[in-house]
Amino acid sequence: MSSYGLHRVLHPAGVLPQQAWRLDADDTCGPDEVVLDVERLNLDAASYRQLREQHGVEGVRRAVLDIVAERGKVQNPVTGSGGMLLGTVRAVGPDSPLGLRVGDRVATLVSLTLTPLRVTDDLRRWDGASEQVPCTGTAVLFGRSIAAVLPDDLPDELALSVLDVCGAPALTDRVVRRRTAPSVLVLGGGGKSGSLSLAAARRAGAGRLTALVPTDAEADAVRAAGLADTVVVADARDPVAVADAVDRPADVTVVCVDVPGCEHGAILATADGGTIVFFSMATSFPTAALGAEGLAADVEMLIGNGYVPGHAAFALDLLRAEPAVRALFEHRQTQQA
Amino acid sequence: MSSYGLHRVLHPAGVLPQQAWRLDADDTCGPDEVVLDVERLNLDAASYRQLREQHGVEGVRRAVLDIVAERGKVQNPVTGSGGMLLGTVRAVGPDSPLGLRVGDRVATLVSLTLTPLRVTDDLRRWDGASEQVPCTGTAVLFGRSIAAVLPDDLPDELALSVLDVCGAPALTDRVVRRRTAPSVLVLGGGGKSGSLSLAAARRAGAGRLTALVPTDAEADAVRAAGLADTVVVADARDPVAVADAVDRPADVTVVCVDVPGCEHGAILATADGGTIVFFSMATSFPTAALGAEGLAADVEMLIGNGYVPGHAAFALDLLRAEPAVRALFEHRQTQQA
Repeated sequence: MSSYGLHRVLHPAGVLPQQAWRLDADDTCGPDEVVLDVERLNLDAASYRQLREQHGVEGVRRAVLDIVAERGKVQNPVTGSGGMLLGTVRAVGPDSPLGLRVGDRVATLVSLTLTPLRVTDDLRRWDGASEQVPCTGTAVLFGRSIAAVLPDDLPDELALSVLDVCGAPALTDRVVRRRTAPSVLVLGGGGKSGSLSLAAARRAGAGRLTALVPTDAEADAVRAAGLADTVVVADARDPVAVADAVDRPADVTVVCVDVPGCEHGAILATADGGTIVFFSMATSFPTAALGAEGLAADVEMLIGNGYVPGHAAFALDLLRAEPAVRALFEHRQTQQA
Repeated sequence: MSSYGLHRVLHPAGVLPQQAWRLDADDTCGPDEVVLDVERLNLDAASYRQLREQHGVEGVRRAVLDIVAERGKVQNPVTGSGGMLLGTVRAVGPDSPLGLRVGDRVATLVSLTLTPLRVTDDLRRWDGASEQVPCTGTAVLFGRSIAAVLPDDLPDELALSVLDVCGAPALTDRVVRRRTAPSVLVLGGGGKSGSLSLAAARRAGAGRLTALVPTDAEADAVRAAGLADTVVVADARDPVAVADAVDRPADVTVVCVDVPGCEHGAILATADGGTIVFFSMATSFPTAALGAEGLAADVEMLIGNGYVPGHAAFALDLLRAEPAVRALFEHRQTQQA
């Protein structure tokens, strides 16, 4: 069980690091651990917003320092969420299975809520005005942690935004390859995980490929990128509109729309015997389960697991190989900046 | 779209019957519909409790009548839930695909929240003291509805308690058959869906079969029934305890424990490359998705769809063929009575 970091749990005893109140953030590298020199914390957006509302821009630095001092990790006690971090490998234990080498620049793909963290610079370079936190300190990865080596050929911001959603294209690839030229529908095909999933589905041998997006502007962008055979516009939360928009139900439906209420539309748009992969964290388990039952829909419904072996390299390779996907990502970053 | 009953939606226009405020409960049988003479309503437990708390035993009859009069269905506006009903087929439309015949005694397996209902006896035989409501009236099934013909050889109560969970053994059968002699773990193996899932897994060719239950008494019952090779006792909400209780991770894990917090235990107890089927409505989508990611667990996670073609007959046949399962069900009914 050491590979899950149980030996780093100080309180309460016997729980997993994510459930723990307090972790041991000592920077001595255990046999199957990796210790990182931290460069930057990326706080989860919901957590940063809550802390800023409670403490103000002036008080948010102190609030994060207090959390780390008390808990040995960044886990907002109100939202329960954390974020991720960038750093450089300082030490690798002899039994670490992660394949990292001293000097590698990495992003952690497991949450800060389970990552032992020490801060040594009082976060003095952070003005509190954004969730990007320049930081000097150390963090610990366990045997079962996940970290991606940052590529030399892509800007950090672009690589991080791909790594943030890298589970979606990897699982889409796996599900599509199980069938022979299945028709694939991606709800939210214009977004980050949606566009990568479209590209992954095409490469995995999808037959007819349909993207559903909420606006004409987004439809134009996806059409111009050539990521789908058909692009349709509908509100993914309206089951009847979704069913009307797609002329035939799909063999595989991938849900990448991060708003609640997309379960029934996905079910209606999927053929009997088909598979739905839900990647949105806004998915409701009972709504999906009872919806399929109420519609007598014989569909397989997968909870989109964010971890698939090799997912980070797979997503970065997709971005490199598909200029259209890269253009959509860069366009999105420009808009947000 | 008529097969989903859209033509029965009066308000608001264009939504599915379950989302509708008001349905048309006219008892004229449409081309792909079936009309039932209602015999009994089984209100959802949560709905009945809420109505009784709000209106008292004296007022609950009036409250249900008001809901049916206003909405054309039984859907508690507070809990959102309904229940199911028993009745006899009065009319079958020429295009109905359900395979029912006039005179069949059936239980509906889709929710009352999407079933057009008329009540004609003022529910005068109901004293309001239980969620079992003797009722005269009519109900409508659509092309995509699900109803099970009640068997002659089993008491109604026993058949209904099997039909209530019949999706679990059918999906377990399907998942286990995909592999060769997989090891199977059932969390909550002593319950209704759990014991049926154990029996289904055995018949589908499971290898090592393990049941996890919460108490020694339940362990004794499952052991005596011979439903599993190994029976272990642990709190399914404690991930470390679950992982410690099962000596090797399972290829297929079936979650039948109807309390929140069983996601991480199921993930830790499942081998890489394995499949978890979540049947509990208390399952949290984000907890499962983020849990698997945080534990770097390459597991397939299925939302337990309550509908699998043939599920009702499959579950009833299991009960008939497995005296041990029947004994557990009957013991449970005696305890509850």
